[in-house]
Amino acid sequence: MASKDFAVIMAGGIGSRFWPLSRHAHPKQFHDILGTGQSLLQTTWHRLLPLLGKDNIRVVTHIDYLPLVQAQLPDLDPAHILTEPMGRNTAPCIAYATWHLALQSPDAAIAVCPADHFIQHEDIYRQMVKQALEACRSRKAIVTMGIQPVRPDTGYGYIQYIEEPGERCYPVKTFTEKPSLEMARTFVESGEFVWNSGMFFFTAEVMQRELRRHMPDMAELFDSRTSRLQGKDRDAALAEIYSRCPAISIDYGVMEKAEEVYVMPADFGWSDLGTWTSLHALQPKDSVGNVVNGKARLYDAKGNMVQLPKGKLAIVKGVQGLFIVDTEDALLICPMDQEQEVRDIVQDLKQDKKNSRYL
Amino acid sequence: MASKDFAVIMAGGIGSRFWPLSRHAHPKQFHDILGTGQSLLQTTWHRLLPLLGKDNIRVVTHIDYLPLVQAQLPDLDPAHILTEPMGRNTAPCIAYATWHLALQSPDAAIAVCPADHFIQHEDIYRQMVKQALEACRSRKAIVTMGIQPVRPDTGYGYIQYIEEPGERCYPVKTFTEKPSLEMARTFVESGEFVWNSGMFFFTAEVMQRELRRHMPDMAELFDSRTSRLQGKDRDAALAEIYSRCPAISIDYGVMEKAEEVYVMPADFGWSDLGTWTSLHALQPKDSVGNVVNGKARLYDAKGNMVQLPKGKLAIVKGVQGLFIVDTEDALLICPMDQEQEVRDIVQDLKQDKKNSRYL
Repeated sequence: MASKDFAVIMAGGIGSRFWPLSRHAHPKQFHDILGTGQSLLQTTWHRLLPLLGKDNIRVVTHIDYLPLVQAQLPDLDPAHILTEPMGRNTAPCIAYATWHLALQSPDAAIAVCPADHFIQHEDIYRQMVKQALEACRSRKAIVTMGIQPVRPDTGYGYIQYIEEPGERCYPVKTFTEKPSLEMARTFVESGEFVWNSGMFFFTAEVMQRELRRHMPDMAELFDSRTSRLQGKDRDAALAEIYSRCPAISIDYGVMEKAEEVYVMPADFGWSDLGTWTSLHALQPKDSVGNVVNGKARLYDAKGNMVQLPKGKLAIVKGVQGLFIVDTEDALLICPMDQEQEVRDIVQDLKQDKKNSRYL
Repeated sequence: MASKDFAVIMAGGIGSRFWPLSRHAHPKQFHDILGTGQSLLQTTWHRLLPLLGKDNIRVVTHIDYLPLVQAQLPDLDPAHILTEPMGRNTAPCIAYATWHLALQSPDAAIAVCPADHFIQHEDIYRQMVKQALEACRSRKAIVTMGIQPVRPDTGYGYIQYIEEPGERCYPVKTFTEKPSLEMARTFVESGEFVWNSGMFFFTAEVMQRELRRHMPDMAELFDSRTSRLQGKDRDAALAEIYSRCPAISIDYGVMEKAEEVYVMPADFGWSDLGTWTSLHALQPKDSVGNVVNGKARLYDAKGNMVQLPKGKLAIVKGVQGLFIVDTEDALLICPMDQEQEVRDIVQDLKQDKKNSRYL
């Protein structure tokens, strides 16, 4: 790859739908959720390493997770960990990484990769990242990776594109955030839509141009402090910027407004691991659809997902379609088809300060 | 009460239907299952104390539980703890206590009381124990306490009696162990049946007579070692006796065969706390029938029983009629109407020696 190609791993999220495993102090991306022996962040790092090399990978994370990132990625130069003073969704995160890399390499092309996704076919993935980086340079536009939808999932954003013969990279027609089930069905049946994977490719120059155009206030915060984004004054500058930034996703802030965006439909066995159900879908099951991570005995129980801490024994009898997630100090029992509400329940917990130890 | 009146608290059981709370190393009777601040054994002790005084109460238990009994009942004279070398059901246990007390007080009358029952109205209970001790002396027969049945429970033994005007203590006609549901319904509707509470009253003389008649082999084991049942040789004598005793209940071994047995119907708010469901029935519920012992938040959940260790938080969503019992190292989830099978499941666990830590 060109030495001016970079990956930015976004590792600052909380993953509250994975409560109680995912906690403020130890979110999802730092867990070995798939039982591979590596955390999701480590898996993401090793997936990109052969393509870009360690010097061209950055990790953006919340300042609180700096020790976790350092411990899990000892080969990552600490200067390549970009710490955010507070979580402000993806737009400020991507802006920070863009301004940072523009300083280091004005001709940089950047692959933005979430730290907590599953990718089955890594070779295909790396080929596509390479092509997407080339495409974002040649088209001077933002390129996204779109996933061939396999069900009318209402938890994803959908990207409609205009198919052009002989191409692998198509102009985007519309973005639709989390549609209704009916709409999702129509989208999937039409064959014109892919899921928004949250992976974006752009040159620093293009992203700066688009941010200045569509999020001018935020772009100005970075532009006016460019010189302070390196060196000792960095943390103070970031504190000023982030405290004034709205918490806005890059999708809402830029992608849906940019005039020219491209999408590359991809099929490398992807899951955003956004929910326990998506994890259930990926893992080996017994003959009646149970996934068990840990020491559990199931009787008359079908289609459940049981996740236990080490040394714990569970007996589960006569229940269907539940996820049962146990940790040392918290237990969650919830039907899989109601798991989207776990995030709300975790919000509920925050109402009482005494619960902070569980968050 | 007459100084020759004694209570024998039977505290040797395992309570495997209360797994995972109840363990071999710490069975049900040693737990504060009702959240009163006292274990069931302590509650039983304090219930009998005002009636009989501490010198006239004996506790029979498995040798392994001696330290637990001593720790929980510091006022109990260690010489009044009768330890069994192995569990052999209630017949050998009652025989041992009978031979022991006959040596100390040939004229003893004995109230046998399980250590793990709930009794709501203790004053009424004590009055009835007093009357039952008097009745077993005056009638020279075994007297049992029968509980007015409130539902056709198939988990209890049923006692049919012949009502005699002006009496409180009636001749027993039949004993029926755990009947079918249909039979239980007929019993309850007839008004002639009470539940077998497992509380028995007899003089040492009468019980020795009945055991010699109906379990002559076992009686002979005790008779031939009477002199060794006190003093240093006690444990060796008991080891000899118990290793040759069958594991038989007093109901099966004596009660069902004795010619003359009486029953006193009682109504003092009783539960044998034999199952999680019986515990659920006794405890305060929220507006949709959930019982929660611990820190749990329930959403769209009805009629559940949630039992948590200290400091643990549970979120329970969208489930009905389950009991969810969590402990430090084991978790049980099971529908209440299937809880009779918990005992079998615990038996299953025993097949693998690696599970012994959970039993």
